[in-house]
Amino acid sequence: MTTLKAVLDVLERIAPSSAAEDWDNPGLQIGHLSQEVGKIFISLDPTLESLRKAVKRKAQVLLTHHPLILTPISSLNRERYPGDVIFEAIERGVSVIAAHTNLDAARGGINDGLAELFGLQEVGELEERSDSEERSLGRIGQLPKPVRLSELTERIKGILGAERIRVLGRKDRRIQRVAVVGGAGGGMVALASKKGAQLLVTGDVRHHEALEAKTSGLALIDAGHFHTEKSALKPFANHLRNHFAEHHMDVIVEVYETEKSPMRYE
Amino acid sequence: MTTLKAVLDVLERIAPSSAAEDWDNPGLQIGHLSQEVGKIFISLDPTLESLRKAVKRKAQVLLTHHPLILTPISSLNRERYPGDVIFEAIERGVSVIAAHTNLDAARGGINDGLAELFGLQEVGELEERSDSEERSLGRIGQLPKPVRLSELTERIKGILGAERIRVLGRKDRRIQRVAVVGGAGGGMVALASKKGAQLLVTGDVRHHEALEAKTSGLALIDAGHFHTEKSALKPFANHLRNHFAEHHMDVIVEVYETEKSPMRYE
Amino acid sequence: MTTLKAVLDVLERIAPSSAAEDWDNPGLQIGHLSQEVGKIFISLDPTLESLRKAVKRKAQVLLTHHPLILTPISSLNRERYPGDVIFEAIERGVSVIAAHTNLDAARGGINDGLAELFGLQEVGELEERSDSEERSLGRIGQLPKPVRLSELTERIKGILGAERIRVLGRKDRRIQRVAVVGGAGGGMVALASKKGAQLLVTGDVRHHEALEAKTSGLALIDAGHFHTEKSALKPFANHLRNHFAEHHMDVIVEVYETEKSPMRYE
Amino acid sequence: MTTLKAVLDVLERIAPSSAAEDWDNPGLQIGHLSQEVGKIFISLDPTLESLRKAVKRKAQVLLTHHPLILTPISSLNRERYPGDVIFEAIERGVSVIAAHTNLDAARGGINDGLAELFGLQEVGELEERSDSEERSLGRIGQLPKPVRLSELTERIKGILGAERIRVLGRKDRRIQRVAVVGGAGGGMVALASKKGAQLLVTGDVRHHEALEAKTSGLALIDAGHFHTEKSALKPFANHLRNHFAEHHMDVIVEVYETEKSPMRYE
Amino acid sequence: MTTLKAVLDVLERIAPSSAAEDWDNPGLQIGHLSQEVGKIFISLDPTLESLRKAVKRKAQVLLTHHPLILTPISSLNRERYPGDVIFEAIERGVSVIAAHTNLDAARGGINDGLAELFGLQEVGELEERSDSEERSLGRIGQLPKPVRLSELTERIKGILGAERIRVLGRKDRRIQRVAVVGGAGGGMVALASKKGAQLLVTGDVRHHEALEAKTSGLALIDAGHFHTEKSALKPFANHLRNHFAEHHMDVIVEVYETEKSPMRYE
Amino acid sequence: MTTLKAVLDVLERIAPSSAAEDWDNPGLQIGHLSQEVGKIFISLDPTLESLRKAVKRKAQVLLTHHPLILTPISSLNRERYPGDVIFEAIERGVSVIAAHTNLDAARGGINDGLAELFGLQEVGELEERSDSEERSLGRIGQLPKPVRLSELTERIKGILGAERIRVLGRKDRRIQRVAVVGGAGGGMVALASKKGAQLLVTGDVRHHEALEAKTSGLALIDAGHFHTEKSALKPFANHLRNHFAEHHMDVIVEVYETEKSPMRYE
Repeated sequence: MTTLKAVLDVLERIAPSSAAEDWDNPGLQIGHLSQEVGKIFISLDPTLESLRKAVKRKAQVLLTHHPLILTPISSLNRERYPGDVIFEAIERGVSVIAAHTNLDAARGGINDGLAELFGLQEVGELEERSDSEERSLGRIGQLPKPVRLSELTERIKGILGAERIRVLGRKDRRIQRVAVVGGAGGGMVALASKKGAQLLVTGDVRHHEALEAKTSGLALIDAGHFHTEKSALKPFANHLRNHFAEHHMDVIVEVYETEKSPMRYE
Repeated sequence: MTTLKAVLDVLERIAPSSAAEDWDNPGLQIGHLSQEVGKIFISLDPTLESLRKAVKRKAQVLLTHHPLILTPISSLNRERYPGDVIFEAIERGVSVIAAHTNLDAARGGINDGLAELFGLQEVGELEERSDSEERSLGRIGQLPKPVRLSELTERIKGILGAERIRVLGRKDRRIQRVAVVGGAGGGMVALASKKGAQLLVTGDVRHHEALEAKTSGLALIDAGHFHTEKSALKPFANHLRNHFAEHHMDVIVEVYETEKSPMRYE
Repeated sequence: MTTLKAVLDVLERIAPSSAAEDWDNPGLQIGHLSQEVGKIFISLDPTLESLRKAVKRKAQVLLTHHPLILTPISSLNRERYPGDVIFEAIERGVSVIAAHTNLDAARGGINDGLAELFGLQEVGELEERSDSEERSLGRIGQLPKPVRLSELTERIKGILGAERIRVLGRKDRRIQRVAVVGGAGGGMVALASKKGAQLLVTGDVRHHEALEAKTSGLALIDAGHFHTEKSALKPFANHLRNHFAEHHMDVIVEVYETEKSPMRYE
Repeated sequence: MTTLKAVLDVLERIAPSSAAEDWDNPGLQIGHLSQEVGKIFISLDPTLESLRKAVKRKAQVLLTHHPLILTPISSLNRERYPGDVIFEAIERGVSVIAAHTNLDAARGGINDGLAELFGLQEVGELEERSDSEERSLGRIGQLPKPVRLSELTERIKGILGAERIRVLGRKDRRIQRVAVVGGAGGGMVALASKKGAQLLVTGDVRHHEALEAKTSGLALIDAGHFHTEKSALKPFANHLRNHFAEHHMDVIVEVYETEKSPMRYE
Repeated sequence: MTTLKAVLDVLERIAPSSAAEDWDNPGLQIGHLSQEVGKIFISLDPTLESLRKAVKRKAQVLLTHHPLILTPISSLNRERYPGDVIFEAIERGVSVIAAHTNLDAARGGINDGLAELFGLQEVGELEERSDSEERSLGRIGQLPKPVRLSELTERIKGILGAERIRVLGRKDRRIQRVAVVGGAGGGMVALASKKGAQLLVTGDVRHHEALEAKTSGLALIDAGHFHTEKSALKPFANHLRNHFAEHHMDVIVEVYETEKSPMRYE
Repeated sequence: MTTLKAVLDVLERIAPSSAAEDWDNPGLQIGHLSQEVGKIFISLDPTLESLRKAVKRKAQVLLTHHPLILTPISSLNRERYPGDVIFEAIERGVSVIAAHTNLDAARGGINDGLAELFGLQEVGELEERSDSEERSLGRIGQLPKPVRLSELTERIKGILGAERIRVLGRKDRRIQRVAVVGGAGGGMVALASKKGAQLLVTGDVRHHEALEAKTSGLALIDAGHFHTEKSALKPFANHLRNHFAEHHMDVIVEVYETEKSPMRYE
């Protein structure tokens, strides 16, 4: 049978931990490497909801994008996050693992998934390497032909399943070169602009980042941290299934389809 | 007549620069202290639009909330922000000054303005002092009586003139103790929660901050960085006018009423 | 009934965590504050043996001198220390707490216990505060009358139950002023010498520290890290029982009497 | 016509900014890259005198050795240096650029100019790279034949046009191997000595640096920061003219011949 | 005749100073490079006893393992170590030199000497490089056949001339793969374990390092800092004699055979 | 008789070492505290010349302004400074002590001496405290009446015995408020200017410091590091003699009258 160690080895091949940012903590969060794994449950966030859903779906492993332990832990309090999730995971026998900025950067990872969903061509990396801040390693590419920003806006809302999005730029501006950064990518405005992007699609854009885009003539779509990453989990799950099949590993992969963003628009 | 030096002295009394965060740069951005001042034009951001509006309104001084020079400058390029604004200001003879985190923290400043707009009572400081990160110094207080989150949501949209806002928390939850932080205040979730707030109203909330609010049982309204600060400029302008009157200084104060957020909802 | 929270409050009064070294991590290691506590089991080290002994003795809490989590944890591996102890503690429902350098420094703590065992008089603190290295905060005092080093050596072996100890200094030297530091105290040679000690009793003395003692004319007894601290746990347990009695808290306190040093002499 | 951008490109080829010290700020100080350039005026220091002379000479660009903005600027005060120069440059439409430690280090730059003026042969670099302090990257070479220090002293006064210079070493000592460092080079005493120099010619020598030279048997001539650099501006201007001619760029280059050292001997 | 400079050159070839730890200070401690050397006296520690013995043995050079100047000196007090040794060495005309962590790491140095004494085969380096802590660079190898820990314990006591040693591990455990680290090597427990060692032999083991060994299943012998290094001085002296002979340098090499550990067991 | 310890105690009262800059190293350089002292020889620099002169004058102690050990020493090489001076001092039995920035700052120290020599009145401290750079703590005061800069220049040359000095400022400018800083004081230009000085007299002025003085309208006299400090040694010697007399200590104090600056003007 397949062990957690073998699953982590596959993940390491898909998204090498050496590609993660310095501040990140991908890989094993809690668990034992010799555990037998028949089913993996994938969610964006390691919340109690995600864990309980994984238990309900009889998975042995919860694989999340955001690591359960991001700040190293000095004290495990059962009554406070992440202690609550860790206690319940240990009690229920569920291991928790993560693939975060290494997955953002990986071939076939979060950002490649976004680029694919948007139909970008001649896709390249937005930056070689980021050292200091939390930001996903993005992608940049070309739309098959120029599209009006207003039309693109509607298209992206549909693709990402996002109810509302925030936009900067003239509605009738024609866009062809697009940068995408899953998660919090407002810090990439200068780079996207320098690399010739006409539009940057990302999440968690802050006010001063929007002003920066405006002064440098870059259109901006903030589709939300949650939606820009969540929509890329399905392609990733397929990617993972292919790897398991290839290595004759008998592991079922499920995605937490009904996971919700913590915030809603009103 | 009144000099720029005298104007800065008044500002120093209202919002002492010693109260600003370490990374901030309030006070004189560009100008000369002996310049004669008859009119001050107030805007949130030191954009070319704001500057030109100030010129059109025949103001000698543009006073903004966000400093024109936040990162110290090694090279003044006329073709790139903030070089473009600086060149044009010098050519047009307009001085530029700022009141930023010192104004957030000040009595009668941004956060006090918000607390007043929301009708909070028994208002106190959310934190004594913040040393390391960009975050406004907020306020915490009581609504006269508990209000449903859904009702409060509508009320706040009206007060701030915000088209759309993002909300976390059960609609029928009854809220009485509210924390407010103008600008980017997602980093204050833990503090607001610890101080007993049931709701935090702020802007620029990031995904991981929303999750943090959720796990600690705090309701959250992200009304936007722009709107939470812009709405407090009018009370501030009045505050300033009173000070000028008190000191018999003949200075007209105008607010850039039609200033727009760089991003729109779609 | 008594909760873990109440126990931690008592401990805080006995050995305030503010007195701990910067690198230390006393207090809650794992557990929930609302847990009911009827028995506390005390050991020097948070080993699997200590935990299992605590389970066997039906204690809800394992209280150790050395913290279970000293280096903050990024990954909880069940197959490696401290993951093995943490998993088993959670599975068995035992909370783990610690009192370390705060207990060394506390009135009635490890070093006061040692000073008492050795019969020191006019006992004072060896140093006010240590900021950078792992070292216990010692005590210094007077023996009732001068004693030959050879005789003192035998006496201390008996008191601490130490099979073998290491000694530096002439056997017939007469000693009256003695410094004691439970645990690893070789770094205190210079201070002890400066404060007029003729002998320093401690553990984990390194070669260069012994040379330092020799060149400054200080006699030295290395009685072992384990024995200098272990022998002080009983007085501490009594101290704790008195506090519980005083606050009418019905908690049984047991010490792991048969705990063994990991190393033996041959 | 030639733009400022094209001028900066030529400068980058002559003295690559990557060769500058970390603390330095060569290149564009203030201006716009699309500005048309017909004349460049060169001075050592970016003073108001230099700027006004450049205006009088109808130059569009002032090129200085010492950067106008060395410490990044947080506030531009018209009444204080460098605000006064920046305001006046913007008002008069003069761009300001600099070539500093990159020019010191460059082939055909300040130090090569000095070596040439002194007639050194087999010239090599005094150090490969300096990382931490302000010091020019010097040169070391051989005089055609040994010369008495007293004679060399007179010769150098003539070459540099220096009224007075300071000397350390026996007058009748015969010198052949000479190190030169334009500007402040007292920090290079140890290196010059190690590389076999018998004499170091530089400026801004401090007392403890002179003592260091004395104890290591190195003769020293302090010809002044100003004179060691100023005298190399003419050869640099020629170098620049040749580059412009080579690239068919129609730009006149003038040197501020009558620039004066701020200090005089009495 | 042979100069001190020539001796240091030989030492540099045997144990290049570039191989020393960053915090270390091998090579010349005090002396002059042109001094003539006919005899070198080797000891472990640069004590007054070692120096006086060297004077008595009419050596011009005292070569020690531990450097006389480890912490850079700001004040030379004749009445305090190391001032006392430095004054006396200068007054007696004895130069002092050291080979420390560079000798630990060197081919034929301290750790190779230990490995040879223990009869290890297929010897490799325990770690490539250590950057931050004081620890010798060890070796790892195989015993010809498995030996009981109890038997190995007795054997090692004999080889090192150690009266008492401290042991961790079951007496009847059969050991074949052994790591050795002369001096203070408790910090290498994790590495030795990772590299497959069943036993680590070293000195100055601290309590928490012993616990670490226990939890990772590594047997441990603490034979003392002094004995693990002292016993390797003789092989090193031979090594040195061979080098001198090879280079036709007429230098006598003696070892301080009767040097004693500062501490004794009781 | 008087011991070196007693001499250092007197020095500590005159110029407390706590007043020294962080990077400084006043007090004992080399020697033994119980040495008997009958004569102290004072010089500016701890050169071989100074030491030999002290030996010739039969002094037991050489007291210098600049410390012999400024950078802590890792290796004492008899053939290189300061090893040469240290070896010779130990061989000749001369102790070396220093009073540096603590003496600059002291009442009756270097800067007070300068102020007195120049006839300043209403003398105050130029700065309370300097933390980061090497600079003497200066004084500021008033001349009895305004004096032309040209006249003051001549007067100062006479007082300090300086052959040549460097001057910045109009010759006919009338000066009354003067700042003085013995040694290297160019870094105090901004402070002197802010405190209302019309002239700063100091040594080791660098080019950029001269420019800074020029742009802020401050006249500047660089009379040399050597001369600004040397001339204050005599008043200091008297100060010292008075202290010895007061404490009935029988110690002769001599100054190295013929000490020369390492550099000469040509």
